[in-house]
Amino acid sequence: MTKEDKISIGLLGAGTVGSGVLELLQKNAASIAQKVGKQIQVTRIFVRDLEKYAHLAESYALTTDIDDIVNDPQIDIVVELMGGEEPAKTLMLYALAHKKHVVTANKDVVAKYGRELFDAAEANQVDFLFEASVGGGIPIIRPLKQCLAANEIQEVMGIVNGTTNYMLTRMSQQGMDFADALAEAQAKGYAEADPTADVGGLDAARKIAILSSLAFNSRMPLDKVHVEGIEKISKHDIEYAREFGYCIKLLAIAKREGENGINARVHPVFLPVSHPLAAVNDVFNAIFVRGDAIGEAMFYGRGAGKLPTASAVCADIIDVARDIVHKGASRILCTCFEETKICPIEKVANPYYIRLLVADQPGVLSAIAAAFGAQQVSLRTVVQKQRVGEYAELVLITYAVPDSHMRMAMQTLAVLPAVAEVSNIIRVEDPHFS
Amino acid sequence: MTKEDKISIGLLGAGTVGSGVLELLQKNAASIAQKVGKQIQVTRIFVRDLEKYAHLAESYALTTDIDDIVNDPQIDIVVELMGGEEPAKTLMLYALAHKKHVVTANKDVVAKYGRELFDAAEANQVDFLFEASVGGGIPIIRPLKQCLAANEIQEVMGIVNGTTNYMLTRMSQQGMDFADALAEAQAKGYAEADPTADVGGLDAARKIAILSSLAFNSRMPLDKVHVEGIEKISKHDIEYAREFGYCIKLLAIAKREGENGINARVHPVFLPVSHPLAAVNDVFNAIFVRGDAIGEAMFYGRGAGKLPTASAVCADIIDVARDIVHKGASRILCTCFEETKICPIEKVANPYYIRLLVADQPGVLSAIAAAFGAQQVSLRTVVQKQRVGEYAELVLITYAVPDSHMRMAMQTLAVLPAVAEVSNIIRVEDPHFS
Repeated sequence: MTKEDKISIGLLGAGTVGSGVLELLQKNAASIAQKVGKQIQVTRIFVRDLEKYAHLAESYALTTDIDDIVNDPQIDIVVELMGGEEPAKTLMLYALAHKKHVVTANKDVVAKYGRELFDAAEANQVDFLFEASVGGGIPIIRPLKQCLAANEIQEVMGIVNGTTNYMLTRMSQQGMDFADALAEAQAKGYAEADPTADVGGLDAARKIAILSSLAFNSRMPLDKVHVEGIEKISKHDIEYAREFGYCIKLLAIAKREGENGINARVHPVFLPVSHPLAAVNDVFNAIFVRGDAIGEAMFYGRGAGKLPTASAVCADIIDVARDIVHKGASRILCTCFEETKICPIEKVANPYYIRLLVADQPGVLSAIAAAFGAQQVSLRTVVQKQRVGEYAELVLITYAVPDSHMRMAMQTLAVLPAVAEVSNIIRVEDPHFS
Repeated sequence: MTKEDKISIGLLGAGTVGSGVLELLQKNAASIAQKVGKQIQVTRIFVRDLEKYAHLAESYALTTDIDDIVNDPQIDIVVELMGGEEPAKTLMLYALAHKKHVVTANKDVVAKYGRELFDAAEANQVDFLFEASVGGGIPIIRPLKQCLAANEIQEVMGIVNGTTNYMLTRMSQQGMDFADALAEAQAKGYAEADPTADVGGLDAARKIAILSSLAFNSRMPLDKVHVEGIEKISKHDIEYAREFGYCIKLLAIAKREGENGINARVHPVFLPVSHPLAAVNDVFNAIFVRGDAIGEAMFYGRGAGKLPTASAVCADIIDVARDIVHKGASRILCTCFEETKICPIEKVANPYYIRLLVADQPGVLSAIAAAFGAQQVSLRTVVQKQRVGEYAELVLITYAVPDSHMRMAMQTLAVLPAVAEVSNIIRVEDPHFS
């Protein structure tokens, strides 16, 4: 076989997703070849430990030297599935510099070094694709770049972390505590031994940085994404949410905030149970998009896992292959041609849910209402819930108020003698009260 | 301006969707130009009545002569938005023969004459795109052709007709009758004066013929799609569905039926309320896809309307424009490279819901059970509901049984003296009982 007949891939990393890609390219080889017009094959695999992947040595040329891959003239596409920032980033830049098309599932690198990688791809006139970096198998990068390209996007809002969605679903459906839900997620392999990046929201932050950059054609640096995790969510919050017609989801949100620019954030929200995202449970992910022409759209599926992620990686491979066959590479590269102002979280307005422990005595409610009123925070609902020891639990829902006002109100509240504890404070994402 | 600087469009038809396309291309002209690398403009519009569209004559060259468009060397793309089979089909073939790229929203023509149009596009090395023909603004054609291209698809199942979904939602949420729901849909402009194509399922059939052809890479002729409408659904059926944990939706379904081939059909179903499609209400559409790698995925949004449909049409225009800029046209044309057998409805197995009026006397139930048993139809649930005059209403749910057996059982049932009426029979689409 000559190069003309086949398209060859150098794979970096043969872990879970890598083995999924090998499996899928083999299983559906015939139909993929017909769609592309050429056969697609992995020829070389870069691994860090030859011993560990000895079982692959029969079918593929294993190497620990990246030069074996980037200097192989037969190889057209480098597929990076090692994860983590380094050496993945350096290897991808090296491959691009050698005029290899690059496909990756690496959200860490795309979120942080997207510009550098796009520039390198453009300079070398090759493709750089990363569909699997957000939402696992769910098509969302390509829809944003192509299918919704005629829209001015107003917001992108997603459940993009399966671990936390699984935990919140279990807490909601089984009345579980946070700790039990986490233990179960770990036992099922949905959460890592160190769950910080998932539970704390960083994983979702990387994904919304990528989605925001695509949706608004303006780069969203990861360190500008406001991040809160689900550590403080208790089953009481979930029960109260339900009483008010909401569920609790960890959402990654990027929105145009008028003249203030674009804001991106990750935090738990009270979401109306009628919202399409409210029905997204367990490890499923979904991304909700609002555009000026399309209106509301949602993309739903498995946000992680060997084969779903491989599905997205292979879609990118097929697209690159079609570009190679039709000699149309680097058709759609960086779309961040704008530099829109970034809106700090302080200026973002939302209604809030607040759960307090207060002294159970006359006058307390009016003191609390006064503290909110002083910061122009209007209360939509105030409900006294159970007694906890000598205190009364109070649940409030406010009308929309900028984050900065709410912070001031909470500071005032914290020093009120009657307030024993601010148990939790969660934003409400409700189109009817925004 | 020379042709090098701009990409010019000849528009066929300036009705609702056409005016949406004009509006959208103007509103978002700047960002579209940046995404494509060239400006995109409509220059000529083919209309059948110059008087009616006189208001457009200031900005566009109106014509009633198609030759003015196909012979204009400045025009790169012909966008057909006239609807209906003729003259749309002839005009598209004529434009393709003149080496114009063609974008259309016309499900009638794509469902019936897809092969002819693809062949013409291929012969002339131009693009033929039709994202708006299914699901309005929802990206589904491109996801099937690109994002899920590495998958062997097992099923595509969708709510693809907004009129009937609106009616069923109203019947379900407000307890409305079919006639009242239809009248309301007509009053709101969701249903046409002659609602036959929507209510009877033909509109959905056209869409599933297109989706099936794409999903299974094998052409599904429209006349092989089994079609039933929602005319016979009563509010009683909806109430009973709810009692059993189901809702009623009009689904368009295409599935691999093992060695029997591929079956495509449109009919109302009992769908578990926990299914992602069950939450798709009002005029919204959604398409649910199951593939061997991605698992379950769903695409949700507005299935009709001026701007949502224009969003999909403009996405196609942008894709063609990118092909023109990068000289990579006809990258993805016909993908029906297989000829998979078509499975007739008779061989498709489903559980069924059956509502009967029977004589309210001893022995009736055993006679009915025997009639089913003779056709190897097992009953999962038998419930006696209200009395209707001298009769009792009986509701049955069967286990999965091939359509042909169910037909035989119903024939036997119809001649049983104790059975006064078979009020309705509806398939159950439940992964747990298939």
